[in-house]
Amino acid sequence: MKVQNAAGRTIQTEINGESYKPYGGGIKYQPTSKLVDSLQKALKTCGVKDGMTLSFHHQLRNGDFVINQTLDACRELGVKNLRLAQTALFSVHEPVIEHIKEGTVTRIEGSINGPVGDYVSKNPLQHPVILRSHGGRWSAIRRDELHIDIAVIAVSQADMRGNATGMLGKSAFGKICYSQPDMMHADHVIIVTDTVVEYPCIYQEIHEGYVDCVVQVDRIGDPDKIVTGSLKITDDPMKKGIAKSCVDLMDAAGLLTNDLIFQLGAGGISLAAVPYLQQRLEEKNVVARVQTGGLTSYIVDMYKAGRMKYMYHSQCFDTGAVEFVSHNPPTFQDIGHYADASSKGRTVDMLDAAILGATEVDVDFNVNVNTHSDGRLLHGIGGHQDVAAGANLTMITCPIYRKKNPIVRDHVTTITTPGDIVDAIVTDHGIAINPKRKDLLKAIGSSIDLISIEELRDMAYAETSTPEPLELTDTLVGMTKYFDGTVLDNIYQVKS
Amino acid sequence: MKVQNAAGRTIQTEINGESYKPYGGGIKYQPTSKLVDSLQKALKTCGVKDGMTLSFHHQLRNGDFVINQTLDACRELGVKNLRLAQTALFSVHEPVIEHIKEGTVTRIEGSINGPVGDYVSKNPLQHPVILRSHGGRWSAIRRDELHIDIAVIAVSQADMRGNATGMLGKSAFGKICYSQPDMMHADHVIIVTDTVVEYPCIYQEIHEGYVDCVVQVDRIGDPDKIVTGSLKITDDPMKKGIAKSCVDLMDAAGLLTNDLIFQLGAGGISLAAVPYLQQRLEEKNVVARVQTGGLTSYIVDMYKAGRMKYMYHSQCFDTGAVEFVSHNPPTFQDIGHYADASSKGRTVDMLDAAILGATEVDVDFNVNVNTHSDGRLLHGIGGHQDVAAGANLTMITCPIYRKKNPIVRDHVTTITTPGDIVDAIVTDHGIAINPKRKDLLKAIGSSIDLISIEELRDMAYAETSTPEPLELTDTLVGMTKYFDGTVLDNIYQVKS
Repeated sequence: MKVQNAAGRTIQTEINGESYKPYGGGIKYQPTSKLVDSLQKALKTCGVKDGMTLSFHHQLRNGDFVINQTLDACRELGVKNLRLAQTALFSVHEPVIEHIKEGTVTRIEGSINGPVGDYVSKNPLQHPVILRSHGGRWSAIRRDELHIDIAVIAVSQADMRGNATGMLGKSAFGKICYSQPDMMHADHVIIVTDTVVEYPCIYQEIHEGYVDCVVQVDRIGDPDKIVTGSLKITDDPMKKGIAKSCVDLMDAAGLLTNDLIFQLGAGGISLAAVPYLQQRLEEKNVVARVQTGGLTSYIVDMYKAGRMKYMYHSQCFDTGAVEFVSHNPPTFQDIGHYADASSKGRTVDMLDAAILGATEVDVDFNVNVNTHSDGRLLHGIGGHQDVAAGANLTMITCPIYRKKNPIVRDHVTTITTPGDIVDAIVTDHGIAINPKRKDLLKAIGSSIDLISIEELRDMAYAETSTPEPLELTDTLVGMTKYFDGTVLDNIYQVKS
Repeated sequence: MKVQNAAGRTIQTEINGESYKPYGGGIKYQPTSKLVDSLQKALKTCGVKDGMTLSFHHQLRNGDFVINQTLDACRELGVKNLRLAQTALFSVHEPVIEHIKEGTVTRIEGSINGPVGDYVSKNPLQHPVILRSHGGRWSAIRRDELHIDIAVIAVSQADMRGNATGMLGKSAFGKICYSQPDMMHADHVIIVTDTVVEYPCIYQEIHEGYVDCVVQVDRIGDPDKIVTGSLKITDDPMKKGIAKSCVDLMDAAGLLTNDLIFQLGAGGISLAAVPYLQQRLEEKNVVARVQTGGLTSYIVDMYKAGRMKYMYHSQCFDTGAVEFVSHNPPTFQDIGHYADASSKGRTVDMLDAAILGATEVDVDFNVNVNTHSDGRLLHGIGGHQDVAAGANLTMITCPIYRKKNPIVRDHVTTITTPGDIVDAIVTDHGIAINPKRKDLLKAIGSSIDLISIEELRDMAYAETSTPEPLELTDTLVGMTKYFDGTVLDNIYQVKS
């Protein structure tokens, strides 16, 4: 069929069985501002309604004002039954408990640290909390297992069109790497900032093509709590000892070469490992290839000292790291690149060695970082599983007991990271290698002393006692998912 | 239902009517190389078969070896009926004609410059060629109107995992901005490079998460033709006169302020406008806000001279531009951000003024850049429509006639950009303003002389002759689409 279009031309609307729509007229675009003066207005513009999923990132950490402000706005709008899909909650988000009590929030998928975790452990939500790793969350969004209706993204600087960064401005917190999938896949995107700059905002981690509204608030957070001024390396000889053992193990496994790709992280023992690793590399006259994962000042210093050739960086853990990335603009990397399990290749796949923490480990090399031994859900997964599956040598660091609680035990309270992908448990009483890793055992040979995981458990139990099984109700509090979307473990309410 | 998963935990597989899959076991990822030693192997790995759509970018321009190499590999594999979804073809791609004759290629959606265009004009393909603008292509891919089976992306440097850039290496050509939607939405991605570097390749415009295979070839192109050493500003007084008139018009319209956002481009008249604009800004002591679009050395020099505050950059048109971006790593911008019509905001929406070229214009302010007046399809759309719709003052530059051919005429041979979004025709015989733009006419007032489009046409016809309508067959050669996916015009074969 032929029709005349709005430009006066006769065009064919069907060719070889395929349909074509005639031009209907062109309009001149206007450079409109997306600034709205309140979160309520922005949420209404984005069609907020009962049952929707709202997402947030956690990079303002315990200084964040944005989640509480947004939920207050939802309360004022009378919206109920929201699903929170934050990357993490902290102590500052205690007001979320009130929103749960009032029915504003009835479902949570994301990490929970602190009081909200304690509350839902005792007062389970109708839907269990779903915990995913960084890479697991990314791929869940990409696969639409976790569909986000409205992404509310805190940024430290934005322009009126929605171009935005976390690296500049008075509340700078580093790269907004966790919100990239939210930006790309959410139906609506609201940018919240305390610093609106002249168009165009530079370092456009978020770009206008994805943004519906820009809301300027007084402050997005408490600057003293957004980034820790400087992370301090522990003086605890126990932790320092474990850190040194990790470096010894890497050395024994033959990994300290110019090809070394490693991730240490920001935990206490991980931080303590940085100077040991740097010193050992100096002694061996080795320059590591690259470090991945979150950035601390210590890693930046090691880079500046010439002990690594490249440095991937995603989130920033302290002021020094924020300072560094703001002067060395974003070349890489986002969390999807780092760990998206649905992708064709992740940065973590290249890891030779990684140091991770643990709340508990068990004789099957399973690791728990989510629940305390009393069953309370108090922490998220972070990149734990992602890194463990990627690294050739995944080292889990912990003392064998803490106070009267055995850390190495028969069964972890909750499986966060399965023993299938854990290679070594490095403790204050020795190093146990997963017996499945015959290649690793062979590489190490007799160059360092090893101990069996069962011996570590026995030593732990001898110093404490054999833990009693928790008495559980049949009410689900939450679940841990593996990064491929399957369920690793269910977390039940403990009988009170 | 409860089942035991591979970690030995009993988990619930249905909760509140939603299904959950049990963990099935974890594997340690291996840092495998994606390098394969031939395009054939890569294409087979990606499951190439008859009828598939293969995409390419055009940033190696007339120096490109990759499209021809890929089609030769397809021929050797016996694959037929391919659809090419390149961003553009040039003279170097003349061998595509053989692939059309042999049935390897039966469908083309993308710009065609030169001999292939001439060939298909005389020997139409079974499916008409579909021409889209930069932003129209991006959104067609995003909406899955143009589904890409295999994206073949030429890069100047890559690592074995598929991280890649166009800014470094012996065949550096600038940012790979056109291939971002291909990377993100194609089922398979093949990286072709002549320079494989140690992992990780920096400036990761393409990242491993999207890449199936990396193919190392001897050369991706002829370096002398990939980027023009230095674009030279014309000595032609006619073109220089039109360029100066554009700056006069911008001035008369009151646009030469510190808020100016502009795009000039790399065409002859556009290039010639740079020094005029720079000089006028100096005289007025004005610093423009930002320039958008492709980058030339002249724009870089203007930036370095302090006559613009920010500089967006996508493709690089010459060696100086490539050199600049390789030392000032990618902050912005990709073509989607620039012009994706399916997005919530484009860079071009902010334009105050833009200079664009024309093969023909008509009294309805329609513009043709695709076909010659003899009906042959010889050029693509580029960003023409995208920019025209976005800029407050869209200036179309051309002489009123070329040799014996009237350029300003009653009807353009093909509509590329509809008169709805064109504001001014700036010629060697005067400036015509679209009468729909009453606001613009008012702003200009009597500050410069204007002329009607009909007068320009009459002058053109007086110097040449009234053009005869082309005698057309009823066989379709191609069509131009507006960036919203609708059809602007059909291009028919001319009777021979």
